[in-house]
Amino acid sequence: MTIDADRLRHDLQTLAGFGATPEGGVSRPSFSPADRDARRWVAGRCEQAGLAYREDAAGNVFIRVEAQQPIDDRTVWTGSHLDSVPNGGPLDGALGVMASLEVVRALKESAAPLRRAVEAVAFTDEEGAYLGFLGSRAAIDGLGAGQLDAVRGRDGDRLVEAMAAAGYPPSALPDARVDPARIAAYVELHIEQGAVLEQLGRTIGLVTHIVGVGRGSVVFEGRADHAGTTPMHLRRDAMRGAAALLTELPALPAAVGAPDAVVTCGRIDVDPGADNIVPERVHLHLDIRDRDRGTIEAIEAELRARAARHAHDHGLRATYHRSSLTDPVPLHPRLQRYVAQAAESAGLAYHVMPSGAGHDAQVVAAAVPTGMLFVPSAGGRSHSPQERTRFEDIAAGTRVLYDVVRRLATDEHPPSSPAPS
Amino acid sequence: MTIDADRLRHDLQTLAGFGATPEGGVSRPSFSPADRDARRWVAGRCEQAGLAYREDAAGNVFIRVEAQQPIDDRTVWTGSHLDSVPNGGPLDGALGVMASLEVVRALKESAAPLRRAVEAVAFTDEEGAYLGFLGSRAAIDGLGAGQLDAVRGRDGDRLVEAMAAAGYPPSALPDARVDPARIAAYVELHIEQGAVLEQLGRTIGLVTHIVGVGRGSVVFEGRADHAGTTPMHLRRDAMRGAAALLTELPALPAAVGAPDAVVTCGRIDVDPGADNIVPERVHLHLDIRDRDRGTIEAIEAELRARAARHAHDHGLRATYHRSSLTDPVPLHPRLQRYVAQAAESAGLAYHVMPSGAGHDAQVVAAAVPTGMLFVPSAGGRSHSPQERTRFEDIAAGTRVLYDVVRRLATDEHPPSSPAPS
Repeated sequence: MTIDADRLRHDLQTLAGFGATPEGGVSRPSFSPADRDARRWVAGRCEQAGLAYREDAAGNVFIRVEAQQPIDDRTVWTGSHLDSVPNGGPLDGALGVMASLEVVRALKESAAPLRRAVEAVAFTDEEGAYLGFLGSRAAIDGLGAGQLDAVRGRDGDRLVEAMAAAGYPPSALPDARVDPARIAAYVELHIEQGAVLEQLGRTIGLVTHIVGVGRGSVVFEGRADHAGTTPMHLRRDAMRGAAALLTELPALPAAVGAPDAVVTCGRIDVDPGADNIVPERVHLHLDIRDRDRGTIEAIEAELRARAARHAHDHGLRATYHRSSLTDPVPLHPRLQRYVAQAAESAGLAYHVMPSGAGHDAQVVAAAVPTGMLFVPSAGGRSHSPQERTRFEDIAAGTRVLYDVVRRLATDEHPPSSPAPS
Repeated sequence: MTIDADRLRHDLQTLAGFGATPEGGVSRPSFSPADRDARRWVAGRCEQAGLAYREDAAGNVFIRVEAQQPIDDRTVWTGSHLDSVPNGGPLDGALGVMASLEVVRALKESAAPLRRAVEAVAFTDEEGAYLGFLGSRAAIDGLGAGQLDAVRGRDGDRLVEAMAAAGYPPSALPDARVDPARIAAYVELHIEQGAVLEQLGRTIGLVTHIVGVGRGSVVFEGRADHAGTTPMHLRRDAMRGAAALLTELPALPAAVGAPDAVVTCGRIDVDPGADNIVPERVHLHLDIRDRDRGTIEAIEAELRARAARHAHDHGLRATYHRSSLTDPVPLHPRLQRYVAQAAESAGLAYHVMPSGAGHDAQVVAAAVPTGMLFVPSAGGRSHSPQERTRFEDIAAGTRVLYDVVRRLATDEHPPSSPAPS
């Protein structure tokens, strides 16, 4: 006995109706009416399945199946998040929660006795309508109401007021913290949000780590001049340096010997930003990601050196400013092995890969042995109504998740520590 | 007898006080309190000099000295504008008006009898706080109140209400139109707003024409992707095409055989414009100027062809869209000759050049023989509090203006038609 694919399909379709948008997408931020209605429906599904539904002070949802033959008092977590970005897709987060619900439901129905309790978890506000990873941080790191006082949502409303209005008094937030030693492991199934699996024709992504993310900016400074009265040879046009650097971005990962790294300029500010004024200042906002912190730092060094060279060539000044650098998070080797073995025994082709996007798994992995697996995203689309995954891939991924969770709940020796760094 | 340099210096300094900003600049848009106060002061200066001060229905100022020995009923105009951009400089426009006031004052004091009346003119709203060239267009082309109904100022207020409040009822606007046959010529002294004269060490710019201006945009379109989950080789990043084209902009004038042409990208829009999303669409706003319409069209054709090539190279689509193309305006050959001769007889080095910026002269030139001369801008600065010209250059330029205007007011045969096109 394993998962019931039809039941899973029905649950995913139903969940997509909470916050459905005219464009065919989903808007379901945490603490919204759509989020509240989705939770009520999930609680009802649990009641139908005879599963205990519980929420903590951060709004995290736990759906529990008890161990019939307990070997220790540790619990296995599997989950993701119910919230979505504005006009996002029906699967980002939602897939992991519905698959986990199905896994817990199937385990309860299964004849094989569990040696550890299993909880399907839905973490609050992963997407950061108010504060990214709010739920997993409250559970793993602990959050106090004081830390949230200044936090406001996308619409400018205060987080603490939104929480209170949704029935989660912020003063109780410290109660959401769990003792990580009581969690045997955490496994998260998610859509890839990229096109790598689709391009390779593989069904399962075995995630080895969540990439580190460097954020920073290169600013070129020249001189503002009248675009009509200043001949080309008398200009100190900040755009010239910016253009030279931008043409080099695609080759930077290979230049530092890390062809899998990614560098993106997704936003540019031009000052003064008028059609008839030669740019005085061009601000390139950069996003750099890799599995290795050293690679990100090497790319930053390249950006700095090349920006200086282009600035010199065009009579400009250039600076690089790092705004943040989050470390890569490796996932637990034993969980990687379990995912590989489950995929192999199901005859599914898998691909070993990083996660280029952030997930609750990276927060949990700091204190709990954590694993992650992907299913393909059609065309790599996510955070959009175009987000799709073939249902046979969804079912296959959920079966792998079931096998991994069942093994964690029946193993004599679960993974005993967070992943080595 | 010629101009009184001390009186001119005093007038320029006094005028700079109307709308003075903390940064040392000037904010004096048309129809503002600073504009009203400046006009009152100018009217007072005219009264002191025994000159007639008059305003038309568009708020254009005319300061008149009559002909003592009239040969015909045509009037010679010399002028510029009193209004400034926000936090602009003390000379853009103001120099031409104060120099023209001084010229008219000196002509009145001169023993040599005038054969034509001369009017120093200050045109309303050249800088377009509401509508660029409002005053010169009302005088030359004619403007009806209906055309202005929808026009709003930088702060969103309606032009017709601002005019009415300033004492210029819009219904009277058609009265501002003059019969161009009654204007013998128009001469405008202006700061260069570029650094060419300074670089060459010349005092006078002899302006042959006002450049044509092409405005348009190249749009590259690719695909929005997650900046973390999409490997570099799977991207269709619109920024790649944009960067390739931007690096080529500085060489485009030479590529079409017009090294004096200018091309500027002063504004970029990136969609969706998030740090963590590969750009789907990059919109380059372009400004192209040259003395020759054919050159502007050739640069547009280059932009189109090169954008298509770069789009092909990076898996993108590219389009060029022209938003406007104003024709170059040649200035009258006889007025160019008068400026050259006046500079030569004063022993001043001059440089034959286009105006890369727009001026009221281009509106007037459509119907009236028109000339223009420049004095150097220190560092090419204008539209900023850093706008400066050495006073000896200001005085020299005003003397040349005096000579040209005096000659136009005493010539038996003034230039008889607008410049040939």
